[in-house]
Amino acid sequence: MPRLRLALAQTNPVLGDLDGNARSIIDTVRDAASKGADLVAFGEMAISGYPIEDLAMRPSFLAAAHERVHLLARELAEAGLGDVPVIVGHPDGPFEPRLLGTSNAPTAIAQNAASVLQGGRVVARYAKHHLPNYSVFDEYRIFIPGDELLVLRIRDIDVALIICEDLWRDGGPVGRVLHADAGLLVVINGSPYERDKDEVRLPLVTRRAIETDTIVAYVNLVGGQDDLVFDGDSVVVGSDGAILARAPQFVEHLLVVDLDPEGATDAQLPDDVRRVELSPGTPSNEKPEIRAEIAELPDDREQIWNALVLALRDYVEKNHFPSVILGLSGGIDSAVCAAIAADAIGPGRVFGVSMPSRYSSGHSRSDADDLAERIGLHFRTEPIADLVLPFEVQLGLTDIAAENLQARARGVILMGLSNQEGHLVLTTGNKSELAVGYSTIYGDSVGGFAPLKDVPKMLVWELARWRNAHASSRGETPPIPENSISKPPSAELRPDQTDQDSLPEYDVLDAILEAYINGGLSIADIVELGFDRPTVERITQLVDRAEWKRRQSAIGPKISRTAFGRDRRLPITYRPTAV
Amino acid sequence: MPRLRLALAQTNPVLGDLDGNARSIIDTVRDAASKGADLVAFGEMAISGYPIEDLAMRPSFLAAAHERVHLLARELAEAGLGDVPVIVGHPDGPFEPRLLGTSNAPTAIAQNAASVLQGGRVVARYAKHHLPNYSVFDEYRIFIPGDELLVLRIRDIDVALIICEDLWRDGGPVGRVLHADAGLLVVINGSPYERDKDEVRLPLVTRRAIETDTIVAYVNLVGGQDDLVFDGDSVVVGSDGAILARAPQFVEHLLVVDLDPEGATDAQLPDDVRRVELSPGTPSNEKPEIRAEIAELPDDREQIWNALVLALRDYVEKNHFPSVILGLSGGIDSAVCAAIAADAIGPGRVFGVSMPSRYSSGHSRSDADDLAERIGLHFRTEPIADLVLPFEVQLGLTDIAAENLQARARGVILMGLSNQEGHLVLTTGNKSELAVGYSTIYGDSVGGFAPLKDVPKMLVWELARWRNAHASSRGETPPIPENSISKPPSAELRPDQTDQDSLPEYDVLDAILEAYINGGLSIADIVELGFDRPTVERITQLVDRAEWKRRQSAIGPKISRTAFGRDRRLPITYRPTAV
Repeated sequence: MPRLRLALAQTNPVLGDLDGNARSIIDTVRDAASKGADLVAFGEMAISGYPIEDLAMRPSFLAAAHERVHLLARELAEAGLGDVPVIVGHPDGPFEPRLLGTSNAPTAIAQNAASVLQGGRVVARYAKHHLPNYSVFDEYRIFIPGDELLVLRIRDIDVALIICEDLWRDGGPVGRVLHADAGLLVVINGSPYERDKDEVRLPLVTRRAIETDTIVAYVNLVGGQDDLVFDGDSVVVGSDGAILARAPQFVEHLLVVDLDPEGATDAQLPDDVRRVELSPGTPSNEKPEIRAEIAELPDDREQIWNALVLALRDYVEKNHFPSVILGLSGGIDSAVCAAIAADAIGPGRVFGVSMPSRYSSGHSRSDADDLAERIGLHFRTEPIADLVLPFEVQLGLTDIAAENLQARARGVILMGLSNQEGHLVLTTGNKSELAVGYSTIYGDSVGGFAPLKDVPKMLVWELARWRNAHASSRGETPPIPENSISKPPSAELRPDQTDQDSLPEYDVLDAILEAYINGGLSIADIVELGFDRPTVERITQLVDRAEWKRRQSAIGPKISRTAFGRDRRLPITYRPTAV
Repeated sequence: MPRLRLALAQTNPVLGDLDGNARSIIDTVRDAASKGADLVAFGEMAISGYPIEDLAMRPSFLAAAHERVHLLARELAEAGLGDVPVIVGHPDGPFEPRLLGTSNAPTAIAQNAASVLQGGRVVARYAKHHLPNYSVFDEYRIFIPGDELLVLRIRDIDVALIICEDLWRDGGPVGRVLHADAGLLVVINGSPYERDKDEVRLPLVTRRAIETDTIVAYVNLVGGQDDLVFDGDSVVVGSDGAILARAPQFVEHLLVVDLDPEGATDAQLPDDVRRVELSPGTPSNEKPEIRAEIAELPDDREQIWNALVLALRDYVEKNHFPSVILGLSGGIDSAVCAAIAADAIGPGRVFGVSMPSRYSSGHSRSDADDLAERIGLHFRTEPIADLVLPFEVQLGLTDIAAENLQARARGVILMGLSNQEGHLVLTTGNKSELAVGYSTIYGDSVGGFAPLKDVPKMLVWELARWRNAHASSRGETPPIPENSISKPPSAELRPDQTDQDSLPEYDVLDAILEAYINGGLSIADIVELGFDRPTVERITQLVDRAEWKRRQSAIGPKISRTAFGRDRRLPITYRPTAV
């Protein structure tokens, strides 16, 4: 005889597509209502997608989002779904700019909000208090913080509502809603995946539940948005810290759970907490109890693989590409990229091109051919010798200039086929080689999406082995040729070249990169960890130089408020309506 | 009989080059001392360059900057310059991270500080209170705000010290140092140029001087740092609002001025204001009075030209490029870029390449030739027909794919020559065509620096006319061929093509872009300004699509805290010592 049936809607919105996202929300509410939900909660910014970045500075977009939420409330009621209260995250505004004295600078005019819809109306609203501005987050730049807390009374249960970062801050809204004696704390989130994030996220939710003696329901977005991947992993934790329900990672999911929260008291609310009484709806004690799902997280490598697959799929689909194309060198990086692409959108939409030069080994062609056959992708061969020679002769290029020419001819081929046939070009470089600048600008770096951009080389091998073993365990053909995994890596830009001619072994390289880039350690610190000083000096110098090389095409002087690059450095993928 | 001789040092630091910047500071203090200065003030972050971006997250860099300031104090004393107090801006740290609850996120460990050096020691220190986080500024992300105000007592004059944004905020530190009855307010700045910035900056300084009844001395950095250009324009304004001294724009300058501020009172200081007594030094009433310079600002077009020239020069010099190379099409954009480059580093370091195709007009070659001769730059011709044909035939490319091929062959030529000979490649696109995506990715967009990235097409023409008139007025050869200015613009990728085949007239285009990008207006708003709706819809759609095209090579899924791109999106140019 549960007192509240809660539905957490883990959805995958398309950034900027207000109408499309609203339609998908209505479908999900219909599903939740058919399962007897008393309350449905969607993720942060579910109506607009997240992060909205520069769109937060456009008054017309904010007004459209505001309007769309009110329209959604009416549409839900017209669809016979007006009874069940629905919590939906959205950008709101435009508001008066946050005061910045006389600087006359472009300032925040938006809030990161959640509205509660019932009976055809927006009956309550909350604005996020804590605006993260570290790592991938830029919220302090674009949002005005909220200053009022919200408690919803549903029949006789008090439900407090906060947004994402609000949960993370000690002494933040969580501490104050505690005084409201809520039985349930709903947190709506746009929390991107990163490796081992479950080692901080779930313990935090658990700790907050225990600290506040409240059930905590955590609903997250899912899906790829440019270089972010939201993993879902929505969860409900009881006030004793036990997991009551958990959604699977990396898929859309409606998590329905029956809860028995503490009843509301008539405790005096703090001044900044607003309580809103909702209509009772259908009492849930008439419904047979539901056994809530508690999904298990797969192991680390499978999580990473799933993240990479979903990121690529959503980039392709949300940007409406029919297919992808990539160079297949016979090496490990392009093989893993091809396997990710086939898992993401099916092998029939993956086009591989072998582009052998006069220095290419026999195995580079046969391994590429083997890969194409294992995966079942489209495969063609475009030799580059006759394309490169005229440049080399006319310009008199030698040494590295001539080596780079080969990589650039391949870039021109892939972009030409992309322009002719419509494919998205994948660039296959991994994080280790990107970090040290071991690639050719406008050559192998050409492409619209880089599946392995954040995957160090040692992890590329690990993922390849995992993916093959995973296939074997299910009786499928392992997609990646064993030879691509086991042979020494080489750019094959001159005879008998291998990566280790100019780089240390990859296990050493990756460890130094981890210390220098992720750890922020100095050269002295890294040497102290046990690495050879000349190697550390060489690698850190390569990283500093590559940092510069990576942005070789983005720099130009700024003379106005809205130069491209720095000001407009917050681009978004998809704007179906330029409002 | 002035009571205080103040020297404002408008210097051009190299980002990250702590030792080099310190050496230049010592030279400047020696100069100021020889001119009898009682107090010398350098700009914001003068010891490290500005903005330091991701370096603010590196503990070892912060420790090195901190140490370097203390070493500088000792070096000044050893050079016999210990008497004169010197105010110098610098990053400071590492400090305990700013509390962000349990989120375990990378947070600020640095402060944006100013130290006062005298007698071989750091005798006082101030940390910036207001951390701008809009437009090009990301300071809230990387710095911890200061919470104490500083007043220096020099003989019997109280000098309040604040940093940049502190001046802009109503009710900020300025209001509070007013209670300290200071006679002089010194503001050290890193304030980048933008068009018409003098229309807000000087009025603000003037207003603060009048409001606080205090002399305000505003010292700014000068120089190019990636896409920012600091313009100097340091100024001293009397308490009646009159300009007492003003440094010229876009050059290093030591501005020396004799001031007669109100004497110190023994007013009780607010709790958060610290007063530090400095040694008296040599009394300045022994020195003959100096007539301070009051530089005049040149007109708008000359200011912009100077900004573009300085930005290019500093990018080339600070990154140690021997020379630049660019394609010369005979059109206006490449002509203006070549003229800027010649003004920046001299024609002997500028290499132009004419790369005619089978569609190139006769005038494209003759105009390029004319330009090269006028400017006196190095010039060569590399026809592309024989380079393009093998690709076109082998891949079967047609239409736009074939057009892009021509632009990409040119990109390969310029990068090949760059790799072979060491030049920095300039990409010559203007802001209007970048905004609507009227360029070929990995084609004409190839290059390390884009001089016209933030210059709309109409302004390109205006600058060309201004530069030619400027030359004529000085009896010099106008650098830009009249025909390049007057002929209709064309990409010449097919026969008889002009830009206006696919774009509206540039005056209309630029006005719509201004409204949409700079003004943040909606389509409806822009139509209401009097533009044709279909044109507005087409242009705004092109902008939205181009926004996506511009970052085609930057995207990849993020799976760790330090993916390249978003996290490491704050790169800096030059790190001579990887500390």
